[in-house]
Amino acid sequence: MKIILDAFGGDNAPLAVLQGAADAVAKADVEILLAGDETKIRQCAADHNIALDGMEILQADDVMDMHDEPNEILKSKSNTSLAVGLKALADGQGDAFVSAGSTGAVLFGATFIVKRIKGIKRPALAPVMPTTKAPYLLIDCGANVSVRPEMLQQFALLGSAYMEKVMGVQNPRVGLLNNGAEDSKGGDMLVETYALLKETKNIHFIGNVEARDVPTGACDVLVTDGFSGNIVLKLTEGVAMSFMGMFKKVLTKNIKTKIAAMLIMPEMKQLKKSLDYSEYGGAPLLGIAKPVIKAHGSSNAKAITIAILQAKTFVENQLIETIKDRLKA
Amino acid sequence: MKIILDAFGGDNAPLAVLQGAADAVAKADVEILLAGDETKIRQCAADHNIALDGMEILQADDVMDMHDEPNEILKSKSNTSLAVGLKALADGQGDAFVSAGSTGAVLFGATFIVKRIKGIKRPALAPVMPTTKAPYLLIDCGANVSVRPEMLQQFALLGSAYMEKVMGVQNPRVGLLNNGAEDSKGGDMLVETYALLKETKNIHFIGNVEARDVPTGACDVLVTDGFSGNIVLKLTEGVAMSFMGMFKKVLTKNIKTKIAAMLIMPEMKQLKKSLDYSEYGGAPLLGIAKPVIKAHGSSNAKAITIAILQAKTFVENQLIETIKDRLKA
Repeated sequence: MKIILDAFGGDNAPLAVLQGAADAVAKADVEILLAGDETKIRQCAADHNIALDGMEILQADDVMDMHDEPNEILKSKSNTSLAVGLKALADGQGDAFVSAGSTGAVLFGATFIVKRIKGIKRPALAPVMPTTKAPYLLIDCGANVSVRPEMLQQFALLGSAYMEKVMGVQNPRVGLLNNGAEDSKGGDMLVETYALLKETKNIHFIGNVEARDVPTGACDVLVTDGFSGNIVLKLTEGVAMSFMGMFKKVLTKNIKTKIAAMLIMPEMKQLKKSLDYSEYGGAPLLGIAKPVIKAHGSSNAKAITIAILQAKTFVENQLIETIKDRLKA
Repeated sequence: MKIILDAFGGDNAPLAVLQGAADAVAKADVEILLAGDETKIRQCAADHNIALDGMEILQADDVMDMHDEPNEILKSKSNTSLAVGLKALADGQGDAFVSAGSTGAVLFGATFIVKRIKGIKRPALAPVMPTTKAPYLLIDCGANVSVRPEMLQQFALLGSAYMEKVMGVQNPRVGLLNNGAEDSKGGDMLVETYALLKETKNIHFIGNVEARDVPTGACDVLVTDGFSGNIVLKLTEGVAMSFMGMFKKVLTKNIKTKIAAMLIMPEMKQLKKSLDYSEYGGAPLLGIAKPVIKAHGSSNAKAITIAILQAKTFVENQLIETIKDRLKA
């Protein structure tokens, strides 16, 4: 099993990527192919005493900047660590690809270099999100601002297969994000999608789900367009962060509340951990012909390690094959 | 100043409505016109020792049920407390109307009985939402699932006027909910809206706002379609509730955390209060020719009192006149 890594993707690259890769190699039976500038990679590894055992380097002179237009990956940016890594995946030099780089560029590059699974209309970006119970998959969270019912139907299939094969959820409950539970809710597009999902084989459709019920685990797969999904992703993050901020203010207000803070420290740490979605790895780009994982831009070494192990599970459990089989059905 | 109340709207009607009305009469210079069945109103008031001073009753035999189709308000449900109250508002028997009844029915009834302000394409439901700083107005939160740029432009005008006149915010910052800050973000509809808002007079447009920044007070008026707004409303509520639930679990876990709970009790109560959006009253239905407030279905007496006082401010500060003037500009 060989995982290709974009050594220069993300805010903390290349250091976090190299550390994360070294931990993954130490923990699990994986080989790593690092895409990036060899001199810089070896320098960073030497500076931080990171052994590059189990890793090869694939030379890429350039780096994709956050401000580069995604489509430049096929043109002026075709020698970036991202482009070179994706080409290596397409050519079969590795089994899966992980990058913490620009979402738009990963999406564009994966779609045009690695290409879609035959029959898939649009790939979708699908992060695993925390709830008070089990985590759920949000598909799509931003790859497709506007969609058609048959695309949402494919998202349901893709998301179900991922939750089952990679996250180990049996018969995952698929919900359609809507502004009410009745099947007549939403515009024409959602009413049509509802009818389509109801008759789709290989998924366990539970109907419309309101945003209010999502954080308490109303479904295992939340199907939505990329615009609404983006709101769900970012608002969940925003409200959670603001809550944490307000609690912190409470707990540091005076001597009494500071004592309270010490008393609940272990439980608060655990709570914080359960809400940290980097614990579930990066967001898989589902519908692409080979496994591609988009790790969070701010990924630290631990998040990179988790994303590598996630890519390994993705490959081992033959998610792509499952998706192909179910698309035929 | 006379406020018309739907005495039978909401989960806790008529008791909460009568108690809320009595408190409002005691606190402020308002008269109340209660729409509903007189016998039942007098019985409830007698049972709970509520004085009906400063209140008149407008007989309405029937009640709008949550399961009734909204358009029935013009047909088989034209003698409900909601319909009778709205007709009284349209006829000038009172200055404003408050109901905690079914959102769909209030919206439909207000639009077809009280009618829109001339030139307004679509009325919008606009709750005031909490943030870690000052509250903001979410417009629309569900009245219009699909919209056009010129409707969003009107929402910006309506929302700005409300925040200024009723909430006392000077030069309110108007943001457009989008999946990125750049003016090219979102679909064609949002790109067009962005351009339109940029050249709209009488509003202070600050550009696109991402959902992540909303809970920390990125804007005073968040403009969006009713579908996305509904997600924002309900997800904010859902994430906040799940956080409170998780925190409660932490604080009741063991003897140590229970002591901590006692130590932070006053601060937690204050925090909870700052997040309680019934503190800001109900959601005004903006764009309707007269002041209509939709109070939360689960409103208690306090929430009703606040909604009545909010309606009073709405009337006193001549919001409808301001809107008419600005529409002309």
